[in-house]
Amino acid sequence: MKASVSSTILAGLLLYPVVLLLQLAPLNVNAADADPLMDFCVADLTKDLYLNGYPCKKPAAVTTDDFVFYGLTVPPQTNNSFGASAVFGFVGNFPGLNSLGISIARLDFAKGGLIPPHTHPRGSEIIYVLEGSLYAGFVTADNQLFAKVINKGDVMIFPRGLIHFQLNVGDAPAQAVVSLNSQHAGFQLIANSMFGSNIKDEVLQKTFFLDQKTVDRLKTIFS
Amino acid sequence: MKASVSSTILAGLLLYPVVLLLQLAPLNVNAADADPLMDFCVADLTKDLYLNGYPCKKPAAVTTDDFVFYGLTVPPQTNNSFGASAVFGFVGNFPGLNSLGISIARLDFAKGGLIPPHTHPRGSEIIYVLEGSLYAGFVTADNQLFAKVINKGDVMIFPRGLIHFQLNVGDAPAQAVVSLNSQHAGFQLIANSMFGSNIKDEVLQKTFFLDQKTVDRLKTIFS
Amino acid sequence: MKASVSSTILAGLLLYPVVLLLQLAPLNVNAADADPLMDFCVADLTKDLYLNGYPCKKPAAVTTDDFVFYGLTVPPQTNNSFGASAVFGFVGNFPGLNSLGISIARLDFAKGGLIPPHTHPRGSEIIYVLEGSLYAGFVTADNQLFAKVINKGDVMIFPRGLIHFQLNVGDAPAQAVVSLNSQHAGFQLIANSMFGSNIKDEVLQKTFFLDQKTVDRLKTIFS
Amino acid sequence: MKASVSSTILAGLLLYPVVLLLQLAPLNVNAADADPLMDFCVADLTKDLYLNGYPCKKPAAVTTDDFVFYGLTVPPQTNNSFGASAVFGFVGNFPGLNSLGISIARLDFAKGGLIPPHTHPRGSEIIYVLEGSLYAGFVTADNQLFAKVINKGDVMIFPRGLIHFQLNVGDAPAQAVVSLNSQHAGFQLIANSMFGSNIKDEVLQKTFFLDQKTVDRLKTIFS
Amino acid sequence: MKASVSSTILAGLLLYPVVLLLQLAPLNVNAADADPLMDFCVADLTKDLYLNGYPCKKPAAVTTDDFVFYGLTVPPQTNNSFGASAVFGFVGNFPGLNSLGISIARLDFAKGGLIPPHTHPRGSEIIYVLEGSLYAGFVTADNQLFAKVINKGDVMIFPRGLIHFQLNVGDAPAQAVVSLNSQHAGFQLIANSMFGSNIKDEVLQKTFFLDQKTVDRLKTIFS
Amino acid sequence: MKASVSSTILAGLLLYPVVLLLQLAPLNVNAADADPLMDFCVADLTKDLYLNGYPCKKPAAVTTDDFVFYGLTVPPQTNNSFGASAVFGFVGNFPGLNSLGISIARLDFAKGGLIPPHTHPRGSEIIYVLEGSLYAGFVTADNQLFAKVINKGDVMIFPRGLIHFQLNVGDAPAQAVVSLNSQHAGFQLIANSMFGSNIKDEVLQKTFFLDQKTVDRLKTIFS
Repeated sequence: MKASVSSTILAGLLLYPVVLLLQLAPLNVNAADADPLMDFCVADLTKDLYLNGYPCKKPAAVTTDDFVFYGLTVPPQTNNSFGASAVFGFVGNFPGLNSLGISIARLDFAKGGLIPPHTHPRGSEIIYVLEGSLYAGFVTADNQLFAKVINKGDVMIFPRGLIHFQLNVGDAPAQAVVSLNSQHAGFQLIANSMFGSNIKDEVLQKTFFLDQKTVDRLKTIFS
Repeated sequence: MKASVSSTILAGLLLYPVVLLLQLAPLNVNAADADPLMDFCVADLTKDLYLNGYPCKKPAAVTTDDFVFYGLTVPPQTNNSFGASAVFGFVGNFPGLNSLGISIARLDFAKGGLIPPHTHPRGSEIIYVLEGSLYAGFVTADNQLFAKVINKGDVMIFPRGLIHFQLNVGDAPAQAVVSLNSQHAGFQLIANSMFGSNIKDEVLQKTFFLDQKTVDRLKTIFS
Repeated sequence: MKASVSSTILAGLLLYPVVLLLQLAPLNVNAADADPLMDFCVADLTKDLYLNGYPCKKPAAVTTDDFVFYGLTVPPQTNNSFGASAVFGFVGNFPGLNSLGISIARLDFAKGGLIPPHTHPRGSEIIYVLEGSLYAGFVTADNQLFAKVINKGDVMIFPRGLIHFQLNVGDAPAQAVVSLNSQHAGFQLIANSMFGSNIKDEVLQKTFFLDQKTVDRLKTIFS
Repeated sequence: MKASVSSTILAGLLLYPVVLLLQLAPLNVNAADADPLMDFCVADLTKDLYLNGYPCKKPAAVTTDDFVFYGLTVPPQTNNSFGASAVFGFVGNFPGLNSLGISIARLDFAKGGLIPPHTHPRGSEIIYVLEGSLYAGFVTADNQLFAKVINKGDVMIFPRGLIHFQLNVGDAPAQAVVSLNSQHAGFQLIANSMFGSNIKDEVLQKTFFLDQKTVDRLKTIFS
Repeated sequence: MKASVSSTILAGLLLYPVVLLLQLAPLNVNAADADPLMDFCVADLTKDLYLNGYPCKKPAAVTTDDFVFYGLTVPPQTNNSFGASAVFGFVGNFPGLNSLGISIARLDFAKGGLIPPHTHPRGSEIIYVLEGSLYAGFVTADNQLFAKVINKGDVMIFPRGLIHFQLNVGDAPAQAVVSLNSQHAGFQLIANSMFGSNIKDEVLQKTFFLDQKTVDRLKTIFS
Repeated sequence: MKASVSSTILAGLLLYPVVLLLQLAPLNVNAADADPLMDFCVADLTKDLYLNGYPCKKPAAVTTDDFVFYGLTVPPQTNNSFGASAVFGFVGNFPGLNSLGISIARLDFAKGGLIPPHTHPRGSEIIYVLEGSLYAGFVTADNQLFAKVINKGDVMIFPRGLIHFQLNVGDAPAQAVVSLNSQHAGFQLIANSMFGSNIKDEVLQKTFFLDQKTVDRLKTIFS
């Protein structure tokens, strides 16, 4: 298996509504955001102006469609390396969220699928299980694990900035919807950031107590 | 139909998980909250101490169950005056939310059911339609309406503090899950607050251009 | 009485300093705002750029007059449907407020005049009675009314986002000055938003238990 | 003139409603505060518990009077060293303000009276002139002065944390009401803090280029 | 080498001032915190009351020593597995920081020493190099690395919540002082949280593409 | 000694990295700022657009050097009137700080040198002594002084907005590094703002109980 994981992950974990817009929009965004100063400030994603957030569309040009997002209706593919997919509705593809401090995502899991450990640097997350059984958990700064199998209709909270994950432990595909209290809470996948970002090998070896060969293998997988 | 609406509403709109806890907890709470100062601060709902928020449980006593909420799994009754029900998972019944600035609710609608116009004084709301077709909208401070029929899988945003509503316009029951960026965003039903709160009749007559008889009728319905 | 209320209300409740500027400025604004990042950031109301807040004037062009507002000196007319008038000094007409999280308004009442029930979606309000006697109050999310007659020199607080009102119950005109902890806290008049915004009749009927004829009448009054 | 200024100032600038409560309450407080998490959280000023803010009264014990403040109705004395008086309605004497991020004050001036240069470390201030003519201004961090004579009905804004002052330049007593966007914005009088706080003489001499004798004289005045 | 890493890390990375107080204080804390509501609110670390933050000492009991911290004066040991040590002055051992939104740490490195990849869930960090040469960097949510060798007197910023690290690449011991804009920004070491927190092996294998044997080895090292 | 102080102060207290950029950038800035909405938003200091904060550079143009600041490496001159110098690394000269809510400064003192009493209107400050002995302190709003001699390695906190100072009381030059929880916390020197800003003499005389001659002398020194 020579093909790298990361392209598959991009296809799987950050599906097209996000990917299509990453060209237009500031790189990465998120929250527990500042307070709104207006009834709304719909993001103008076409402007060549970069801010902490987005400039707004001219109010007279705003329509109801700016406040509605259809990007979560299509079931995404989960036949990637992790058997899972996360599609976000965030300010970068759902402009009505700008200045309002909340966003959403749909998680789909094949049997055994995993949304791998990650953080949202700027938001807390609340999950609602739509279908199936997920082993979900987060780790605190003192390495305490709070994890549990949650089922259809159950809700769980993951505090801001802490590492968390969800694994499908049921016999069938699973699905969940999550919200984050930021217009773009960020999504930092731990393994990708560690092995897919060209950090010096010495750092990776010393951090994970891995030999050079294993580090090389992981860098290939995640690059 | 003599029976007043308000008792039915209480049964329907603020189902038991909320109602049970309103005895223990400060009256009303909500959001786009201050930042957390700790990894978590699970609400201690048993203490006789009232704060802007809640005191925390002793960290050593915290378990995974504090971060999981089961109150949305049971389908609530919708056979009330509005044909709809809103069950909240907020800091008052889901203590793990304390200090984390997010909460959740499940909306259930009979055919023609309505979550009547209301505000969340302290949070923006994002809705995800689970089943059915909802005519959903919000009104801005200059009385502009942004409304639309949204269907299964669609997402809509309601900005902080603005009046909004959802009406089931499909041929079958409908269901949705919403999140709000506050641990208790508040839930002020417009008609109930107006006609169910003992405001002087003169204010109500002048506000709504209604005669005394109609005001009396509405006060009976909502008291 | 055929003439609709809303035009009168616009004349009365949102007097000219506001109206004149609504063309230039983002539609609607308000607060308990984010922190300032500079000593000042005087709003540039002439720029064709829409933000969450406003861009600033070039600092070298700022003068003392940017920090002074004369719009509250002229007694406004109160011969409208409500017998009352609210004139705001907010960021849209008082540019020095930009980024500073506070605004002001002058309330004038004819005998019996009413500032009808409304919310400020983004700010708390403090009122100081200049002349007369006002029956003033607010309603909480659980429909509890806190109301009282307040007189010259008295102060009252209305919490953020909650419905409140002021009625002149004295024998003479009354006057008050209020501040809100937002550069534009918003001003959503309940009845206007409900009956003046083209919400489907079905929603209005079910919300207020009114027949179609009354709904039609109210829509005419407020449209 | 042997009598020290500071006792007179206490009588004049921080009139009795504040003074009476400083025994019960944390020393000094103020704002552009965190967001409220509840409809209200009326300060319980009787509890022996110190917080960033105040604990709340039990909601069932809250009455309308908690939201009303009468401390500004009595005209304060202005026959002190500065010929002026500032009476605050802040969370320490007006418990309904707790968690709501706003407070109020009444300023009274004899002819020639001065509210001397001061800062509010945690809030911006908006002033509304009730009577008379005030030379009012603030200084920015780069020592730029924005000052002007303002008259009855005029409004001026003083940005958060910056040094400002008001001098009665009219031929009669003057009066103003101010609001600050904090439940207790703080009130640090520059000269009092410098010469009335036991800072080493060497610091004062070097800061103000004053000789020891003048420093001694000022310390006596302000201690 | 049988001895586990984690005990060494505890000795090295979270030196005694922190460790001693973790018994008394809420588990883990941090920020870009809410605004202060008082001039100060010195943490009372002796109270059996857990809050989002800390209760304050009675103002009359506060002394200058509450605002001074001596815990960074003693050079810590760096003879641990990582050859590095981080000693924090945060609200849990430096009570004057409570409500003020800032904290500090001293980093010491043996030759080749590493502060391994970690996040501060609630704060941004600014580093000032006291001695030596550090290869320092952070990774964004889209796996972009910003890293560089910084030397004595150089300053670098690590944005809130993002993974970052510092490696001594000089020929001698190195030292740095860092500040974080939270009273306790949190300190989540990536490898420790992943392999030292009892996450199911299946999650770790799938996340890092490691076999069971390697996972077992790492769990032994970090547990 | 005829030469005015202020030019010397500008040379000494706000060294060249700041001075050079004050032409390009909004006048004065600072914090305990709003939350970031993106992983980073590096300030674009070249744009002719003024905001509450700064616009960001196009993300693709950002390099590691945007996050590193070299302006504190050169020892500044301290042969000015105060025998001290403060060089800031703030958003105006260190663009990577934009939206991240923290900044830094280096303080250098000749023997007997003084950073005179000042405030940071928008941030708290933490100081770490690099060399020497400083008599450092702050004054609260009720004129209480918290001051102490601190030595190498000691840390002290100065709460947001309060007047504070540092005096070298050792036998040799001293040095310190400070951080502030704002991207530009502001730096208002008390004496300069009072006597160097053209406030009416009457205000200064009445505030400081000084005669016209002394006021004239001080205005000459600080203008």
